[in-house]
Amino acid sequence: MTERAADGSIPVLDHGFVRLDGVMADDLSVVNAARVSFARRKLELDDSDAGLVGFLMRERHGSPFEHNAFRFHVRCPIFVAREWFRHRIGSFNEFSMRYAEAKDEFYVPAVEDVRTQVGKPGSYTFEQVSPELAASTRAELEASYLAAFGTYQRLVEQGIAREVARAVLPVGIYTEFYWTVNARALMNFVSLRNAESAQREIRRFAEAVEELFAEQMPITHAAFAGNSRTAP
Amino acid sequence: MTERAADGSIPVLDHGFVRLDGVMADDLSVVNAARVSFARRKLELDDSDAGLVGFLMRERHGSPFEHNAFRFHVRCPIFVAREWFRHRIGSFNEFSMRYAEAKDEFYVPAVEDVRTQVGKPGSYTFEQVSPELAASTRAELEASYLAAFGTYQRLVEQGIAREVARAVLPVGIYTEFYWTVNARALMNFVSLRNAESAQREIRRFAEAVEELFAEQMPITHAAFAGNSRTAP
Amino acid sequence: MTERAADGSIPVLDHGFVRLDGVMADDLSVVNAARVSFARRKLELDDSDAGLVGFLMRERHGSPFEHNAFRFHVRCPIFVAREWFRHRIGSFNEFSMRYAEAKDEFYVPAVEDVRTQVGKPGSYTFEQVSPELAASTRAELEASYLAAFGTYQRLVEQGIAREVARAVLPVGIYTEFYWTVNARALMNFVSLRNAESAQREIRRFAEAVEELFAEQMPITHAAFAGNSRTAP
Amino acid sequence: MTERAADGSIPVLDHGFVRLDGVMADDLSVVNAARVSFARRKLELDDSDAGLVGFLMRERHGSPFEHNAFRFHVRCPIFVAREWFRHRIGSFNEFSMRYAEAKDEFYVPAVEDVRTQVGKPGSYTFEQVSPELAASTRAELEASYLAAFGTYQRLVEQGIAREVARAVLPVGIYTEFYWTVNARALMNFVSLRNAESAQREIRRFAEAVEELFAEQMPITHAAFAGNSRTAP
Repeated sequence: MTERAADGSIPVLDHGFVRLDGVMADDLSVVNAARVSFARRKLELDDSDAGLVGFLMRERHGSPFEHNAFRFHVRCPIFVAREWFRHRIGSFNEFSMRYAEAKDEFYVPAVEDVRTQVGKPGSYTFEQVSPELAASTRAELEASYLAAFGTYQRLVEQGIAREVARAVLPVGIYTEFYWTVNARALMNFVSLRNAESAQREIRRFAEAVEELFAEQMPITHAAFAGNSRTAP
Repeated sequence: MTERAADGSIPVLDHGFVRLDGVMADDLSVVNAARVSFARRKLELDDSDAGLVGFLMRERHGSPFEHNAFRFHVRCPIFVAREWFRHRIGSFNEFSMRYAEAKDEFYVPAVEDVRTQVGKPGSYTFEQVSPELAASTRAELEASYLAAFGTYQRLVEQGIAREVARAVLPVGIYTEFYWTVNARALMNFVSLRNAESAQREIRRFAEAVEELFAEQMPITHAAFAGNSRTAP
Repeated sequence: MTERAADGSIPVLDHGFVRLDGVMADDLSVVNAARVSFARRKLELDDSDAGLVGFLMRERHGSPFEHNAFRFHVRCPIFVAREWFRHRIGSFNEFSMRYAEAKDEFYVPAVEDVRTQVGKPGSYTFEQVSPELAASTRAELEASYLAAFGTYQRLVEQGIAREVARAVLPVGIYTEFYWTVNARALMNFVSLRNAESAQREIRRFAEAVEELFAEQMPITHAAFAGNSRTAP
Repeated sequence: MTERAADGSIPVLDHGFVRLDGVMADDLSVVNAARVSFARRKLELDDSDAGLVGFLMRERHGSPFEHNAFRFHVRCPIFVAREWFRHRIGSFNEFSMRYAEAKDEFYVPAVEDVRTQVGKPGSYTFEQVSPELAASTRAELEASYLAAFGTYQRLVEQGIAREVARAVLPVGIYTEFYWTVNARALMNFVSLRNAESAQREIRRFAEAVEELFAEQMPITHAAFAGNSRTAP
C-alpha cells in the first residue's frame, strides 16, 4: 500500500493527491445486482461469489458493477484534469479560476520523469534524459511558471478580471476537484489511464484511484485484473 | 413518515415496495462540491449552508447534487418499471423472465384506484368509478391474470422455453430491480413522477423514493420543494 | 440484403419492422474525428483510412465513432423493447398506452421459432419443438392474447381508464418507437443483441439494425466485424 | 445573420470559429417523436405543429428534441474548451498536444473586452477598463504568451517530450475539436453559456452555436426563446 497522508489521501506527483472522500461500495452489491435476475438476495458473500463476479466481468455483464459509488477529492495539474474530464460517466466539480484567485502551485517533473519521446504517435515510448538536460528543463519550467504567474498577479492587481488574467496561466498549474463515479466507469478509467499508452502523470493518479478501489472491492478488482484489465 | 416493514422497506400498492438498500448521501457533500470552486472545504454544515443549497437549486447549478448515491431495491408492476427505466441517468438490474420462472403476483388496483379518465391527452383527469364497476373491474383483471398465468405455466410444463412462454404475461405482473441513482437524477425522477401528470401507480412509488431521499438530504429536499419541485 | 418494404423498412418477425428514418453518418467523420488530434482534416477518404479505422476499433479509441447519428423507427413486441431500452446511450420515444388505445397486434412465433431451452442460465441453448407442440403453442398464445385483448376492450368500453385497463395486456403485444443512436452505441447494441446469447427475437431486430448500419458506414462495420464484433 | 467565412464557418474572437460540419435536424422529427405516442406520423409540418412544439418545451417533455444531431467543428481557447467539455451529453474529439506540436495562436481580447469585475461571486458584473490599461494588458498577455511559447519550443528542440513541454503552455492557447450533440443538450448548453452569467468568451461561441441551431430548427428555436430560454 502506498504511504498515506494524515487525512488518508495518497500523495501524487509534487503537489497532488487522491483522497477517497466518501464511498458506498462492496463486492456483495455486485452479486446481489446479478442475482436479482433470479429474485434472490444474499446478506453475505460466500465462496461461490468470486466465480460469479469473474463470469460477469468476462461476459461483459457490466451493469451489476454500477450499484456503488466512490467520491474522490483530487488535486492535479490542469493537463491531467483535462484528460480526466473526458470520462463522461461520472460527476465533477472543480476549482474555478473565474471565482477564485489562482494559487502558485505548478507541476515540475522529478528528475527521472523528465523524458524524451521515441517512435510514432500511437506507439511512443519514453526515455529519461541526461541529468543535465533534466536539471535545465526543470529550471526552465519553473522560470516560465514564475513569469506567467507574475503577469497574472500584476494584471489582477491592476484590476483586470480574474477570468481574463487567467488566460496566461499554464496547463501545468494545479487544480482541484471532486469526482464521483461507479466501479464500472472507474474500471474503464483505470483500464485506459493506468496503462502503458497513458501519459505518465495521469497514470500516477490512476494508480492511486485503483489502489483505493481495490481496497473497497477486492473481489471485483481481482476479476478486473484477471480479465486483462478490461472493464466490463 | 409512512409505515415501514421490518426490513425498512416502504410497502407500495398491493405487492410492491421501495427499500433503500445502500446510501452515500448527505447535504454536506453538496456544499463541499460547490465550495471546491473556491478550494474550500467544511467538515460540518453551518447555518449559512441552507442558503447556498437554495441558491444552487434556483440557479440550476446541478452538478453539486451529483456527489452522492442511493441504491434502491424496488418491486413494482412491469408497466410502472417501463416508465421508471426511461430515466437514463442511473443504473438498473432487473429480474429476468428469460432466466427465472415468473411468479404469480399481479397488480389489482384498490377499489378507490379503479378510475375513469376525463378530458384530453396532456390534461386528463381521473375520477373514481362506481363501487359496482370497481368490483367487476377488479374481478375481470384477476380472471385475466389468472388465465394468462395458467397458459404460461402450461407452456413451460410442456417444455416451451420460458423466454417464449412469457409473451403472454401481462404488464400488470410484478417485477423487481435495483436502481442506483444520484440526488440530481432522483429529483428529476421525482419532479416528473411524483406529479399530477404522472400515472397514479408510479406516483406512489415516487412518493416512497422522495420520502427516503428527504430523510438523507433534508436541506436539499427542502430546497427542491421550495423551488417548485423543479430539479436543478 | 434483406428484402425491403416500399418505404425502405426491413420487416422483422410477424408484425415488426426496422426503418431508417434519418441518418448523418459516413466513415469519413470517423477519420476526421481521429485526425483532429493532429489538426488535420480530409475531404475524402483514401486507401490508408481503413487501417486507421481498424486501429481505432482495436485500441478502443471509441469517441471518433460518436460523430454520427442514426434515427430508427421500430415496431416490435414489448418484451423486445424492454431489452432494447436498457441501452441508455441513445434516445427513445415510444407509443403510449396511457394516451392511445392499444391495437391487437401480437407476436406469435413462426413454427421454427417455437423452442425449448436446454442447459443452464448463462449457457442455454434452444431446440425446435415437435410440429404438434409448435402448433398447439401457437394456438395457446393466440387464444391467450385474444382473451386478454377482449378484457382490455371491455374495460375500456365500460369507461375504465386506458392506463388501468392496459394492465392485462401481454408483453407479446407490439409497440412502436423512435430510437436515435450513434455508431459507437449502436455497435455496443449489436455486439450484445445480434449474438448467440441474445434472445432470438431481439436478435432479428439487431440483424436489421446492423444491416442498415453497414450500408452507411461500410469501413467501420468491416472493422467491427474484424474486431470479433467487440464495440470500441 | 453573422458574417460567414467561405467554408460557412462563423468567426469568433481573434482566431476562433464555429462551423457546422454535419447535421441531421429538422422540426418535423420533434413532432413525429411526440406523435409516436399515438402511433401517428406526418410527412410534413402543418400549422398546428408550432403549438405542439411549444407545449413539449413548456411541459419539459424533452426526449422528442433528441432525435437529431449537429456536428460542429470548433476552434477556441483552452479555457473556453474546458467549460464546454463539462457538458457530458454529447461527443468530443480534440486536438492533442501529446501527439502533435502546439501552434502559436493565443487569445488576446479586443480592447473593449479587456474588463474589470465588480461585485461578488455569483453576481459579478464586468466593466470595460481605460484604453491605457486595455492596451497594456493586451501587451502583457502577448508578451507572456510569447515567452511561454518560446520555452515550449526550446524544450521540444532539446528533445523533451511534447507531453512534458506543453505544461508551460497557457490556457489562452487555441485548441480545436469536433462536438456532436442533439438539440436538447444543445439548448441546455445555450441556456447556460449564451447567458449573462457565462464568461463573455464562451458566450460568443454559444451565440454562434445558437445561430446555426436556429437555422436548422426554427420552430424549436422559437419555442426555446419563448420558454425563457429554458431547455426542456
